[in-house]
Amino acid sequence: MNGIRNRALGTATRLQRVEPFLAMDVLAAAAAKERRGDTVVHMEVGQPSAPVPRLVREAAARALEEGRIGYTEALGIAPLRDRIARHYSDSYGLEIAPERVVVTTGSSAGFVLAFLALFEKGARVAISAPGYPAYRNILAALDLEPVPVPLRAADCWRMTAAGIEAAQAQGDLAGALAMSPANPSGTMIPREGLAEIAATCRRHGLWLISDEIYHGLTYGAPAETALSVEPDAVVINSFSKYYCMTGWRIGWLVVPERLVRPMERLAQNLYISAPYLSQVAALAAFEATEELEAVKAGYARARELLLNELPRLGITEFHPADGAFYIYANIARFTNDSIGFCRRMLEEAGVAATPGIDFDHENGGHHLRLSFAGGEDVCREAIARLEPWLR
Amino acid sequence: MNGIRNRALGTATRLQRVEPFLAMDVLAAAAAKERRGDTVVHMEVGQPSAPVPRLVREAAARALEEGRIGYTEALGIAPLRDRIARHYSDSYGLEIAPERVVVTTGSSAGFVLAFLALFEKGARVAISAPGYPAYRNILAALDLEPVPVPLRAADCWRMTAAGIEAAQAQGDLAGALAMSPANPSGTMIPREGLAEIAATCRRHGLWLISDEIYHGLTYGAPAETALSVEPDAVVINSFSKYYCMTGWRIGWLVVPERLVRPMERLAQNLYISAPYLSQVAALAAFEATEELEAVKAGYARARELLLNELPRLGITEFHPADGAFYIYANIARFTNDSIGFCRRMLEEAGVAATPGIDFDHENGGHHLRLSFAGGEDVCREAIARLEPWLR
Repeated sequence: MNGIRNRALGTATRLQRVEPFLAMDVLAAAAAKERRGDTVVHMEVGQPSAPVPRLVREAAARALEEGRIGYTEALGIAPLRDRIARHYSDSYGLEIAPERVVVTTGSSAGFVLAFLALFEKGARVAISAPGYPAYRNILAALDLEPVPVPLRAADCWRMTAAGIEAAQAQGDLAGALAMSPANPSGTMIPREGLAEIAATCRRHGLWLISDEIYHGLTYGAPAETALSVEPDAVVINSFSKYYCMTGWRIGWLVVPERLVRPMERLAQNLYISAPYLSQVAALAAFEATEELEAVKAGYARARELLLNELPRLGITEFHPADGAFYIYANIARFTNDSIGFCRRMLEEAGVAATPGIDFDHENGGHHLRLSFAGGEDVCREAIARLEPWLR
Repeated sequence: MNGIRNRALGTATRLQRVEPFLAMDVLAAAAAKERRGDTVVHMEVGQPSAPVPRLVREAAARALEEGRIGYTEALGIAPLRDRIARHYSDSYGLEIAPERVVVTTGSSAGFVLAFLALFEKGARVAISAPGYPAYRNILAALDLEPVPVPLRAADCWRMTAAGIEAAQAQGDLAGALAMSPANPSGTMIPREGLAEIAATCRRHGLWLISDEIYHGLTYGAPAETALSVEPDAVVINSFSKYYCMTGWRIGWLVVPERLVRPMERLAQNLYISAPYLSQVAALAAFEATEELEAVKAGYARARELLLNELPRLGITEFHPADGAFYIYANIARFTNDSIGFCRRMLEEAGVAATPGIDFDHENGGHHLRLSFAGGEDVCREAIARLEPWLR
């Protein structure tokens, strides 16, 4: 081969700012343990264990038989955009024009499109700590600056207007990201809290991005959409959680009208379109309410079990998850090294969970996220294994 | 609503650098014409008209019946990575470790992952002009600088080492992107041309990215992979073209080993994983050779027809497409406004094609891309309509 390489080919420095999910290491360690013939109780997974609803499968099967599975319009097929718009009327009493709905390749694509459309490079964006790790990593990957807003257990781990004010006081923000129900805490921001957040964003000229991926999975009052208090909010949602469609990679955005054309151009170039079968299948998901509510009832039973049993094991400090399928528990009486704790818990008790450090670099060392997405039996077995181990 | 908005919420300036595909406007105009009851001959489409192979459909249908469609490892399911690695041995005689294969959500995701992993913000990346419009738009969206390398008809529209040298002389590049067979010209870079490009990249310390999405679709000698001449090349490929799987959004990268872990972190955060059904289906695509070769034989007949008939219509300046399914024709004797020409051709003759300006801002005004992905009958009808119109 000709040519002398003068310097080793480097990689981008942004890679150093994109951190691995520790949850993935837990998954890998759990898989290794299972390969050795041990059983593992999975309390670490962030996806429904229920299969995709029958109606969704059938819709995909019909589309498969038709044979033609091509690109679609970048913003998504019209019937799906219409149906999502109608969902806002049915579920929230809001009229949303179908043109404002952007179908995305999962909420992951929604974040990328929103961040690229709204923020200049280097822009500061407030995110919650604890919060979904991909927020800070996607922002870092796109040369934006995640600004963690420390949430407090005393506020039920809710993002607050005061938290955003404090972050803004440290340097101008360009946007703030709220999530309700939240990952990892499962707690929700009530309407007045969302209204205060929206007012703060308006006062400082910040984009409000609302991650509503756990809507539908609530165990008391339904979740409020940010669109009720801020018509200019950018809402991110997905079919992965309530609709049990993780592996389909399908979600949506609702954006202000003036963002639609710019988003379309970005989406054309960065994604071409969301997967066709997933779009057709997602349309059917809105008809699968009966099956999906049964799945949710299973989560509710699993949640009840954990709320009752965890305190008996000495895990007493946590908020009852109002939504989602997680409990974020303080384990300070056991450890301040949540990574080591999770590793030992997996190895010795055969229960996988996610170390809090994944969600909160500052204070995650004495927290743990337990997912009850696996249902009641999984949770019962986890309790049975943890009881002797924690003692 | 409380709070005063001090300033209108702006959008990112990068949006102004991301241009719409004119091809999309052609599509929209063609659709509008069809809604009025007119027929349109589609020579503008960049995707196979053939349905997905039967074996692929069957594999997806089986996976659908099993019901569990979840996230996968961010780098893709192991059997697919293994099978893609074997494809390099079968088709190119190269041993590629399966670990170096990254399964992506179409080649679109491959570009985003490669650009983010390799280049610092603001980095200059050489791309071909004419070339696939998403190159410059994805680079612009990620705050990188596309540097068009003007290709020459006299070089059969091939990217050359000299072209990269000239771009490098204007200011340091960080990488160069080559494509063979090329969109829009269908022409190919022979092995010695690729070796020269690789040597130039090595000499200047540039990453070589090779877009090999049209591999498999060649009408003479098979295409060479950049990996044959540069083991450190980043190769982008997809199941969309030869494998007729556009709407599945599934592709792959082959990357140097040291990029695998960083790519995994980026992919986890930006995509979580490629769609599960598409991964399972893609695995079956490697077994569908008989069906796929029959589709290709149809392209070959359509290509022959165009090569024979276009000169009779006065379209004489083009290179026979060695690969892909496009002919990039000089139409200077008719116009230097390819957009207006395409618009009139659609309106008056009912034939849709893509204006050259989409691929080349400088010289695309007197070029046109004709796709023969629709097959022989479509091309015959196009010729029949164009003959009286061009006269």
